[in-house]
Amino acid sequence: MQTVIPHWLTKQAEISPEQIAIQNGNGSTLTFQQLKESSQNYARKLAALGVSSGTHVAVLSTNKQEMVVAIHALSYLQAVVVLLNSRLTSEELTYQLKDAEVSFLLYDGSLAPLSEEIPFSQSLSFTAVNHLQPKDVKLATEINLQTPFTMMYTSGTTGFPKGVVHTYGNHWWSAVGSALNLGIQKEDKWLAVLPLFHVSGLSILIRSVIYGMTVYLLEKFNRKKVHHVILTKKITMISVVTVMLQQLLDELGEDSYPAYLRCMLLGGGPAPKPLLEQAKEKNVPVFQSFGMTETASQIVTLSAKDALKKIGSAGKPLFPAQLKINTPDENGVGEIFVKGPMVTNGYYNNESATVNAIHNGWLATGDLGYLDKEGYLYVVDRRSDLIISGGENVYPSEVESTMARFPGIKEVGVTGKADPKWGEVPVAFIVTDQTYNHGELQCFLTEHLAAYKRPKEIHEVDYLPRNASNKLVRLELKKLIK
Amino acid sequence: MQTVIPHWLTKQAEISPEQIAIQNGNGSTLTFQQLKESSQNYARKLAALGVSSGTHVAVLSTNKQEMVVAIHALSYLQAVVVLLNSRLTSEELTYQLKDAEVSFLLYDGSLAPLSEEIPFSQSLSFTAVNHLQPKDVKLATEINLQTPFTMMYTSGTTGFPKGVVHTYGNHWWSAVGSALNLGIQKEDKWLAVLPLFHVSGLSILIRSVIYGMTVYLLEKFNRKKVHHVILTKKITMISVVTVMLQQLLDELGEDSYPAYLRCMLLGGGPAPKPLLEQAKEKNVPVFQSFGMTETASQIVTLSAKDALKKIGSAGKPLFPAQLKINTPDENGVGEIFVKGPMVTNGYYNNESATVNAIHNGWLATGDLGYLDKEGYLYVVDRRSDLIISGGENVYPSEVESTMARFPGIKEVGVTGKADPKWGEVPVAFIVTDQTYNHGELQCFLTEHLAAYKRPKEIHEVDYLPRNASNKLVRLELKKLIK
Repeated sequence: MQTVIPHWLTKQAEISPEQIAIQNGNGSTLTFQQLKESSQNYARKLAALGVSSGTHVAVLSTNKQEMVVAIHALSYLQAVVVLLNSRLTSEELTYQLKDAEVSFLLYDGSLAPLSEEIPFSQSLSFTAVNHLQPKDVKLATEINLQTPFTMMYTSGTTGFPKGVVHTYGNHWWSAVGSALNLGIQKEDKWLAVLPLFHVSGLSILIRSVIYGMTVYLLEKFNRKKVHHVILTKKITMISVVTVMLQQLLDELGEDSYPAYLRCMLLGGGPAPKPLLEQAKEKNVPVFQSFGMTETASQIVTLSAKDALKKIGSAGKPLFPAQLKINTPDENGVGEIFVKGPMVTNGYYNNESATVNAIHNGWLATGDLGYLDKEGYLYVVDRRSDLIISGGENVYPSEVESTMARFPGIKEVGVTGKADPKWGEVPVAFIVTDQTYNHGELQCFLTEHLAAYKRPKEIHEVDYLPRNASNKLVRLELKKLIK
Repeated sequence: MQTVIPHWLTKQAEISPEQIAIQNGNGSTLTFQQLKESSQNYARKLAALGVSSGTHVAVLSTNKQEMVVAIHALSYLQAVVVLLNSRLTSEELTYQLKDAEVSFLLYDGSLAPLSEEIPFSQSLSFTAVNHLQPKDVKLATEINLQTPFTMMYTSGTTGFPKGVVHTYGNHWWSAVGSALNLGIQKEDKWLAVLPLFHVSGLSILIRSVIYGMTVYLLEKFNRKKVHHVILTKKITMISVVTVMLQQLLDELGEDSYPAYLRCMLLGGGPAPKPLLEQAKEKNVPVFQSFGMTETASQIVTLSAKDALKKIGSAGKPLFPAQLKINTPDENGVGEIFVKGPMVTNGYYNNESATVNAIHNGWLATGDLGYLDKEGYLYVVDRRSDLIISGGENVYPSEVESTMARFPGIKEVGVTGKADPKWGEVPVAFIVTDQTYNHGELQCFLTEHLAAYKRPKEIHEVDYLPRNASNKLVRLELKKLIK
């Protein structure tokens, strides 16, 4: 039994044609009716290019209205949108384009320099597409929830990025689960400053079309700008990562936010308790959450109400989700498994990774945690290796395998170090031979790794801590930092 | 791809254990945790009786907490709940029990006299079940949205009642569609005074467990009681039919409702314009709607905001629904077709009725209507024959075929007559022979037809209006009334 619904943007344009869909930082707006028309027009131009049902089309952009239009346009053609992280290097992007079997790459003009570095022939700027003659094609009027809609890359313990496939249903159920938890109110307006190429940002767009809610779109985080927008633009919801929360609280000082700001959804890694307590003191309605690309955004959320008594907890699994702690130890701590219709069916063209991660619908998150007596989740350790730096995931294995390719580096181990601004930053320990050149290594890293993945410190050591089976012990690396 | 979610009551008990699920007219309450425990205990008793996955169990009750518990208990066993209309005669109920292949009948003690008239051996009162020893069985922890959950009978143009099967998914999507339209607010409390054996009442229960919302449960409609409850019990939403709205407005007089009463959802047939205007004057937030058993409750709803400019319209199809006017005439009027995941897959064991009603997912409602330029639906005529009397559907063909069995009645035609209290009442025209006895007919009707289906007037005529092919022309019957 396939579940079919009307195309969500068309539907919202029918229900609330005059409602503002997108409000841009520069003041311009687009209603749902206008967004629908722009997206449909853009779809016809993409069709002229040769995009059709099932075509994989990559999008490389910061948070811009053109990106929103491109995403919806691709959905009208039933193409699959591969969302690229604009912070990656051309080499990293090239890997993803190939792995995702992308046919076309669309990029925002501001990223032309980066896109030109990518050896990929079918690249076009948003503007170039706009100059094409539209082709008269039949656009989707319905959405089958089983159909793949987006792909996003996430690294993992193996070091090879994997393409997480989201169906329309994954996004739909995530939006509905969020609504059942946070409620839906007419006056809601969600500030999207997290990148739309991450699921934390994209999910705001999807909620917008499903709820008929305005998204206030900002291209990048600037503490003064975001602070000003919250105070003056009737923002009721905002998604943030820890580093942003910290900066916003600093900016807030002794002031307070307007009472209609009802949810500051906090994701992207564990938050230090002092920060949460500070938010509590200032009456900032922080909702801690737990989620990952595979769960199409938050899957566990702590309401502001519970935040007072459950500080440090990520909350309870959202309505359509289940959670269990796998083989808990004597303290109840074990690996967090989650299940629900928002969880991905798997990784693109990567059966082994899929089989490793998902068993009978249960996703092994790789994170450790426990449930208290009332069922609230406490995450005690993120995926053993994972470093979360300013909301971006950094997998040590990926950094290590890149660094190991550099001439003169014999062994390398990477771990996270606490950082007052970014939460954590990667730090590397290397064993080198006499041909090693530090300056050249920096050039090499700049070419091959996104800035946030590059080690902020590189320490030369005589040997790396290894266990009996010669496996790197990253826990020992952490001790070396001290 | 099957969509699986956690069992909704278990889930809500985990999320909001202390939240009131059911508030009864007598003041007693049940939290979600208590409702879950009661339902699970009751399920184990039903298991002792022999109820298991797929068993068809009928429930005959007015709006009582025991009925709510029984419904959830049956869902924990994955049994199918056949909801019986307590206003029907034993003969009508017997037909439904047989057609629905029911194994057990559960009834509320107050309906013992009616249930004893039904020739059915496996009947038990709610109390009798409570005395059983529980059996230790595995209860459902998950819900597969494709699984059938309830059945309700609706008559039709053929005169034979048909069992509408609702899957969990039909109810789920109906609840979500309603939430996306009406919003979800923490303080919501929905007054359920419409019968739970109708989908308009049952859908309130389902919304309750999905939203974590309190249901205020009243056994029957009494204008003074309902008025008092609205004024004193912090009711924010209420579902009503036209006759109730009229009485409530009379009761309200020059007063006004509290501002937190944010939705009076009006279903069950067309509302007279003067009544809607009266509601508007008194600032009563009436949401007109259109729906039927087959759509698992409202599928088109007019918001209070739009009510001001679109008086008389049923509104726009809810988010996950589609609507079209089939083969419209020059005025745009045609049969209303609807589609969406809340629409039933069909009638129980009745392939021909299913095939007649549903084509490629589109349900032919039998109602006529048109869309205005902005996409608002106006229903111009209910299912050609249908009489809606106090919110209950009366199919003339069913009344006719029953009356035709009475000795001395040679021909019979039934139609609706406007009625100040009930909206419409059935009126019959008969052609008789000399053996006909009016007093005996009344006895016969009392035995075979629910009170609301019995003609309020019976006129003897020489012949019935028929067309060239000898088919009854009911439109002409209406003229005879005048």
